[in-house]
Amino acid sequence: MGRGEAVNTLIQDLKEGDDFVGFYLIKAMEARQTNSSVPKDYLDLVLSDSSGSISAKYWDASKTDLETFFPMCVVKIQGAAHVYRDQLQVKVLRIRKADENDGVSVTDFIRSAPVAAEELIAVIQRTIESLEHGDIRRIVTFCFDKVKEQLQSAPAAKSFHHAYFGGLAYHMVRMLELGEFLCKQRPFLQRDLVQAGIILHDIAKPAEMISEYGIVQDYSNAGKLIGHISMAAQWVTEAAIKLELDTGSNAVLALQHLILSHHNLGEWGSPVQPQMPEAVALHYIDAMDAKLQMVEDMLQTTADHQEWTPAIRGLENKAMVRLKL
Amino acid sequence: MGRGEAVNTLIQDLKEGDDFVGFYLIKAMEARQTNSSVPKDYLDLVLSDSSGSISAKYWDASKTDLETFFPMCVVKIQGAAHVYRDQLQVKVLRIRKADENDGVSVTDFIRSAPVAAEELIAVIQRTIESLEHGDIRRIVTFCFDKVKEQLQSAPAAKSFHHAYFGGLAYHMVRMLELGEFLCKQRPFLQRDLVQAGIILHDIAKPAEMISEYGIVQDYSNAGKLIGHISMAAQWVTEAAIKLELDTGSNAVLALQHLILSHHNLGEWGSPVQPQMPEAVALHYIDAMDAKLQMVEDMLQTTADHQEWTPAIRGLENKAMVRLKL
Amino acid sequence: MGRGEAVNTLIQDLKEGDDFVGFYLIKAMEARQTNSSVPKDYLDLVLSDSSGSISAKYWDASKTDLETFFPMCVVKIQGAAHVYRDQLQVKVLRIRKADENDGVSVTDFIRSAPVAAEELIAVIQRTIESLEHGDIRRIVTFCFDKVKEQLQSAPAAKSFHHAYFGGLAYHMVRMLELGEFLCKQRPFLQRDLVQAGIILHDIAKPAEMISEYGIVQDYSNAGKLIGHISMAAQWVTEAAIKLELDTGSNAVLALQHLILSHHNLGEWGSPVQPQMPEAVALHYIDAMDAKLQMVEDMLQTTADHQEWTPAIRGLENKAMVRLKL
Amino acid sequence: MGRGEAVNTLIQDLKEGDDFVGFYLIKAMEARQTNSSVPKDYLDLVLSDSSGSISAKYWDASKTDLETFFPMCVVKIQGAAHVYRDQLQVKVLRIRKADENDGVSVTDFIRSAPVAAEELIAVIQRTIESLEHGDIRRIVTFCFDKVKEQLQSAPAAKSFHHAYFGGLAYHMVRMLELGEFLCKQRPFLQRDLVQAGIILHDIAKPAEMISEYGIVQDYSNAGKLIGHISMAAQWVTEAAIKLELDTGSNAVLALQHLILSHHNLGEWGSPVQPQMPEAVALHYIDAMDAKLQMVEDMLQTTADHQEWTPAIRGLENKAMVRLKL
Amino acid sequence: MGRGEAVNTLIQDLKEGDDFVGFYLIKAMEARQTNSSVPKDYLDLVLSDSSGSISAKYWDASKTDLETFFPMCVVKIQGAAHVYRDQLQVKVLRIRKADENDGVSVTDFIRSAPVAAEELIAVIQRTIESLEHGDIRRIVTFCFDKVKEQLQSAPAAKSFHHAYFGGLAYHMVRMLELGEFLCKQRPFLQRDLVQAGIILHDIAKPAEMISEYGIVQDYSNAGKLIGHISMAAQWVTEAAIKLELDTGSNAVLALQHLILSHHNLGEWGSPVQPQMPEAVALHYIDAMDAKLQMVEDMLQTTADHQEWTPAIRGLENKAMVRLKL
Amino acid sequence: MGRGEAVNTLIQDLKEGDDFVGFYLIKAMEARQTNSSVPKDYLDLVLSDSSGSISAKYWDASKTDLETFFPMCVVKIQGAAHVYRDQLQVKVLRIRKADENDGVSVTDFIRSAPVAAEELIAVIQRTIESLEHGDIRRIVTFCFDKVKEQLQSAPAAKSFHHAYFGGLAYHMVRMLELGEFLCKQRPFLQRDLVQAGIILHDIAKPAEMISEYGIVQDYSNAGKLIGHISMAAQWVTEAAIKLELDTGSNAVLALQHLILSHHNLGEWGSPVQPQMPEAVALHYIDAMDAKLQMVEDMLQTTADHQEWTPAIRGLENKAMVRLKL
Repeated sequence: MGRGEAVNTLIQDLKEGDDFVGFYLIKAMEARQTNSSVPKDYLDLVLSDSSGSISAKYWDASKTDLETFFPMCVVKIQGAAHVYRDQLQVKVLRIRKADENDGVSVTDFIRSAPVAAEELIAVIQRTIESLEHGDIRRIVTFCFDKVKEQLQSAPAAKSFHHAYFGGLAYHMVRMLELGEFLCKQRPFLQRDLVQAGIILHDIAKPAEMISEYGIVQDYSNAGKLIGHISMAAQWVTEAAIKLELDTGSNAVLALQHLILSHHNLGEWGSPVQPQMPEAVALHYIDAMDAKLQMVEDMLQTTADHQEWTPAIRGLENKAMVRLKL
Repeated sequence: MGRGEAVNTLIQDLKEGDDFVGFYLIKAMEARQTNSSVPKDYLDLVLSDSSGSISAKYWDASKTDLETFFPMCVVKIQGAAHVYRDQLQVKVLRIRKADENDGVSVTDFIRSAPVAAEELIAVIQRTIESLEHGDIRRIVTFCFDKVKEQLQSAPAAKSFHHAYFGGLAYHMVRMLELGEFLCKQRPFLQRDLVQAGIILHDIAKPAEMISEYGIVQDYSNAGKLIGHISMAAQWVTEAAIKLELDTGSNAVLALQHLILSHHNLGEWGSPVQPQMPEAVALHYIDAMDAKLQMVEDMLQTTADHQEWTPAIRGLENKAMVRLKL
Repeated sequence: MGRGEAVNTLIQDLKEGDDFVGFYLIKAMEARQTNSSVPKDYLDLVLSDSSGSISAKYWDASKTDLETFFPMCVVKIQGAAHVYRDQLQVKVLRIRKADENDGVSVTDFIRSAPVAAEELIAVIQRTIESLEHGDIRRIVTFCFDKVKEQLQSAPAAKSFHHAYFGGLAYHMVRMLELGEFLCKQRPFLQRDLVQAGIILHDIAKPAEMISEYGIVQDYSNAGKLIGHISMAAQWVTEAAIKLELDTGSNAVLALQHLILSHHNLGEWGSPVQPQMPEAVALHYIDAMDAKLQMVEDMLQTTADHQEWTPAIRGLENKAMVRLKL
Repeated sequence: MGRGEAVNTLIQDLKEGDDFVGFYLIKAMEARQTNSSVPKDYLDLVLSDSSGSISAKYWDASKTDLETFFPMCVVKIQGAAHVYRDQLQVKVLRIRKADENDGVSVTDFIRSAPVAAEELIAVIQRTIESLEHGDIRRIVTFCFDKVKEQLQSAPAAKSFHHAYFGGLAYHMVRMLELGEFLCKQRPFLQRDLVQAGIILHDIAKPAEMISEYGIVQDYSNAGKLIGHISMAAQWVTEAAIKLELDTGSNAVLALQHLILSHHNLGEWGSPVQPQMPEAVALHYIDAMDAKLQMVEDMLQTTADHQEWTPAIRGLENKAMVRLKL
Repeated sequence: MGRGEAVNTLIQDLKEGDDFVGFYLIKAMEARQTNSSVPKDYLDLVLSDSSGSISAKYWDASKTDLETFFPMCVVKIQGAAHVYRDQLQVKVLRIRKADENDGVSVTDFIRSAPVAAEELIAVIQRTIESLEHGDIRRIVTFCFDKVKEQLQSAPAAKSFHHAYFGGLAYHMVRMLELGEFLCKQRPFLQRDLVQAGIILHDIAKPAEMISEYGIVQDYSNAGKLIGHISMAAQWVTEAAIKLELDTGSNAVLALQHLILSHHNLGEWGSPVQPQMPEAVALHYIDAMDAKLQMVEDMLQTTADHQEWTPAIRGLENKAMVRLKL
Repeated sequence: MGRGEAVNTLIQDLKEGDDFVGFYLIKAMEARQTNSSVPKDYLDLVLSDSSGSISAKYWDASKTDLETFFPMCVVKIQGAAHVYRDQLQVKVLRIRKADENDGVSVTDFIRSAPVAAEELIAVIQRTIESLEHGDIRRIVTFCFDKVKEQLQSAPAAKSFHHAYFGGLAYHMVRMLELGEFLCKQRPFLQRDLVQAGIILHDIAKPAEMISEYGIVQDYSNAGKLIGHISMAAQWVTEAAIKLELDTGSNAVLALQHLILSHHNLGEWGSPVQPQMPEAVALHYIDAMDAKLQMVEDMLQTTADHQEWTPAIRGLENKAMVRLKL
């Protein structure tokens, strides 16, 4: 497996019987032992690239191998594809870590939002600049600046929806589009509050979850003990104090209410229920975007020939069907 | 109270001490007796016109009066406005039923959707004609024709939302606008199904509820024993049979699924949960339109000087606030 | 393993150390691999006959074997019984598929209702013929004819109760017996409605579930997207149209209400709740028969020496005890 | 209003304009005052006889009258029937308490089970005598003897079902009939346990509720603090000790389990859930009899011309319809 | 009713037939009209003093009277006590407002915590001073100073428990006693966190509820839209910023977690659940003190001769019994 | 592995690479087979001593070994410690059962309450002797004597809390301490009832659960069919009869109510809800002690270097954090 080969086989192109070479991301890895009387170590792997993922075994791994490889590292592999229990699987013949000379990076192998993070962030920033109410604009700017860097990659959730690179920014932008439509359809809604609510409602998620390349590893202590909803509400307090605004003003009150109430019910994590028109709107904009994205994400990762997707946890654990009309 | 007077005092213009004359709708009426040792009959009334409604008493009503007047009849009244327990109230001095010569009709006195029923129905009809899938178009047309007449006036609910003249057609049209937006934002949604689902989801409501001028008097027996959801699904079956289509086709299955699942959960009346992308969309389009309309309706009927509306049953029994930013 | 041997060992007669020969149904089968460094294929089987079922392993299965055998096929086996982790298990020494000359069929190996399907269907048919109300009789006949063939084998459920060959017809007949008792005890109940409700309430189950020999393989698309309750209600609509009856008549309304309400609550799948005396009766007749059958089925499949049965999902996940008085 | 008149007008025969005389039970009574500036006392009454009940007013009641009359006392009345707010009502002209010479008693005026208490009790006693298991028979006899006297009149509940004279014994007997049917249909059920369970399940109700002539006035302290379920289970303990039986025997255990589990779920008052076949049967026998009796009682007390009964609390608050087929 | 009379009759000393004079607080008042054909105004009052409260009527009130008197004002009354429907009631003969010369104040007539507010506040302050962790002590001091003034009178709730003058401070002090016991019994609990949690958990209640003399009139806008739990958590943020402490320190995190989680469940208003030992302790200290106080408050306001108290909403709506052992 | 060696390595002192010898309790054991084509038996073990527990494998176990060893037996082991999948594990080289000459007993290896059972029982007994009400004292003594022996070892639960040797007595004593505090803080609570309630509330647990050395093996039939709450209430009935006290006295009623209501809600197993002040207190004393003990137990069994404990089932499945302040 020297350097410079042009070949790189995509996972979705593998067929039974293929001998192949390529770069892949180790998305998951477990060191196991065979059950033979003299047990031997082997690696149970999930390999992925931008086209999909596949299960793989690396038999007779050495002690050094166990310490060399780990989840989220990119490797070059020579392997053989075969079918095991109706599923295509890879038997790894040779494996080494990718290095700088290979010219590959983790981001080549991960799932991303369909729009580039820079574009999404630009849309959000233009929206913030267009907010008419000065205090609201300043508070939103303050909170946004806290996470602007992380928004390049942060997902919107661990697994429920938008759980990928740039997912949170993408969620915000789609919600802003829906919010724009609603403000036009129902002029009694105040655009400033709808837009500020959308941008702030999940703004503390990058501080709630520890993620790498859009994949959530764990929740932070503050994420577990405070939660992103209360964290965001406190950022508004912090913004008001630091910007020398009145922490008891109606603008501050309205922004905190929008954040705190957007999960709608106590059992879903909101300590108060929506009591402003824009808070009602925000909850439904969020729900509609999240639920439809769950459907869209699940359809995309379900093979075309399958009539039913797997069950979707966030949708009463129901699967979706593809009906030919 | 002869004919031909020009004067007609609007309810919202009444002030304490006014002596006035005008035509009003009896929105509610109860015959009562005083508690004196020789009890006397009187009428406890709610009068309304397009500007609002007000409580009124007609003391010393005769036996004939008790039989002459009834809810939903239009009357001409000479009265005096006074304050009782902080509320303006009318003491009725003279009262008679309006007749043909008065040139007034019930519809002058009732709450209506903000768009004329004819326009709404035209929008729905154009949408139906634009459906691309022939069987879907024919089935939707069949069902629509069943209620086209009643859609001129039918409300969308007894009290929750859109509970007024033309409310159901208005609900459909607003949902179609939202559906149009969503289909553009998320092209994986099939427009035919989204639009057909919107038009059919509440199509059996005029058969579930007995209403007059947009005010629901009661539920029909079929409404109570079958419910509008199952009724609409059966109309699809009926349409397929009468149009000689395959009752087991995917088109019929999809339309019935959209109808049956649109309340999302069993405890909300849906025997199945959404399992098609368009069914998920339909539920959230319906929820968002209904909830925001509840808010809008309540704000419109709450006096401008009041900071808080009354509690809204369909929104966790929460009131809405008007915050000055 | 030639033909014509008289011997055929019943599963319940197997003891540790037995070498035996017999015909069995493969109720479940999985192709697996050993964990040795050169993994070998083997078959993990569940064998069954009318006396019970037992776990079995067929080591060193060839590639041909993997394609020869499958669930629901009948095989002839030479095996050895041994104890593994406190449980009797079979080591398969030789295996071949049964063929026409063996004179065995799947039905010899499956669990069945304790009464022959023909008898059950005859009871149901006599009951239908005895219905006094002409329209009800005609509608029930129409719906019954749709599934008469399948009732020979259809189970009443995937696993909860009556989950075996002819289980649905058996459920109907036992309910008819209970209904007959109740109509005599409480003459205010209308026998026609009670009997029609019993026959129609689960009539669409054969269309909801795809089953073979009384064992449910899966739910149909219509079963998932519409559900057997709504399907049965639509068959009534279809019957009325095809028989040229009034779809809005009280008879049609009553039958549809009985079907739609028989699960009693929204969270159990009924879009409306019982609002006729016979609908209340139907729900409790159904519940009583299903729950007691679950108990009876579980006791029958629990070995006599065990004081407690396994937990029964449909009964709050409680086990049943056999107390010696 | 002297003695010995033959006339006695039944309530259901009263028509507008009647002047009449008769004996009636005061089922409810409240002393009120008119709102005149010199308020006067009057009596607001509900009169009843075996044919029904009616509202009545006794104007200008004296202070003596207020102390003379009380609920559950029988009175002779001379009155006039008139219509007030669409309802027939009685204006009391003269009133006196009934005395021994009138030859009337409270029981002439109350609602009763349709079978005489003596007959019902005889059926229960014969059933007890037929119990085959000696200890069970002795324990049931012991418990039954505690309430035999009260069973002559005790209702089964305050208002839910069988809420009348002899209602509890009637409930037991109807359940025994249903139990008999089930034991024949499903021979794996042990008749002794089913019958003992039926007789014991509500046996402590007369000690839980303080009733007079089948009308519950209140719950006893023990009824509130212990509840009839735990009380009955303790009676079994007491019986075992007093009869010198083993309190830890399976027979005692089974009887206590039947009693404790018959409400099926913790939130319905059962500290344990059914775990014996007969306990499952008992719960459904009880539920079926109670629910169908609620329906039957409500239909009987709803005027024939009304299509819908009032809502029934014990049936998800649903009303029942009378559909003409 | 001149000045300087010595007499002042306590409400609990009133007996039927008494003519009396005294000062009382108008706790509730409604202007009503008689139902006579010429309706007259009268006042329906609840009078209270420190010994209890009683219903009263002031017949023939003048228009001036309607505007002179209002809830929470102290009046001098000459009245007569009589019994109406089993209850002692006052007929007001003369009434005037108390003025400065009368030497009475509202606080003489209201219900208070059994310990003086000054003492309670002193206990809290000593506890704060004893906190060992400097940042915690400073933050608690900052928050406490915000409400120190209001703690003189603030109740702990509108009606559930400690709903009286000084009730909140009393609740805190009793909880501190219980916390002290627990910290000694279980040394693994950190005293600083338990005590800080107790003092902070309801610290924002005076800002959530608008109260006068310990009687809650209404909730503030911030109280409704943010809630006292989130408000208190934000005060901690504010304190940290203003005191120039690290807002992300574990001390800040711990205090916010204690506040946010103390209602234990989402449906009870806590956005996060207890995840520190002291947070678990805090929830149960709060619950135990609140529930036992509800019981104690209800027993105190229930007349000694009554065996059962009214139902207590916060205790599953159960009443308490006084059993003589 | 001869007798008399001084060495005995504690589990918590084991390090990777150690060869060691020691006595341990087999806390759990499963006989397994390797997946090799000629499968071999091996023992999968959990070894424990007072310092902790560890996973172990005994490869190539003989048929005799499979029958020699079993859970809860003490063994002497020669082993080697190595790391497998990040966890220290033992490879057993030699193993034999401990015998009398080894001078070790099971109790040396089990988890116990931190106070000796004798001391705990002495505290309970002194409390019983101090009860002032004679009947209550006699009844509590009667019930206590039933389980005094078993209280030496009985745990308070299978796994939720106090699930160890002497755990039930420890739970009682800690609750008595808390009860003592509360009775002093709130003198309206009757000490006799609080203390009797604490001692009786779980008194039937040793009869509900079959345990050995504080480890619950299973529930008894009575435990499943009656439950410890109803069993304890029946013991009070039994005590009253055997002691010739009035079974209907308020003392008996109060004790039974305390026991029956202490789980607070029907869904938590209480057939009645608390309706005496002491019953409310008892529920919260029990809850507070159980929940805080869960926390304390979990912290003690979580390695010091781990910031988060595992999730605690009885606390909404939440983990506890150790925050450094």
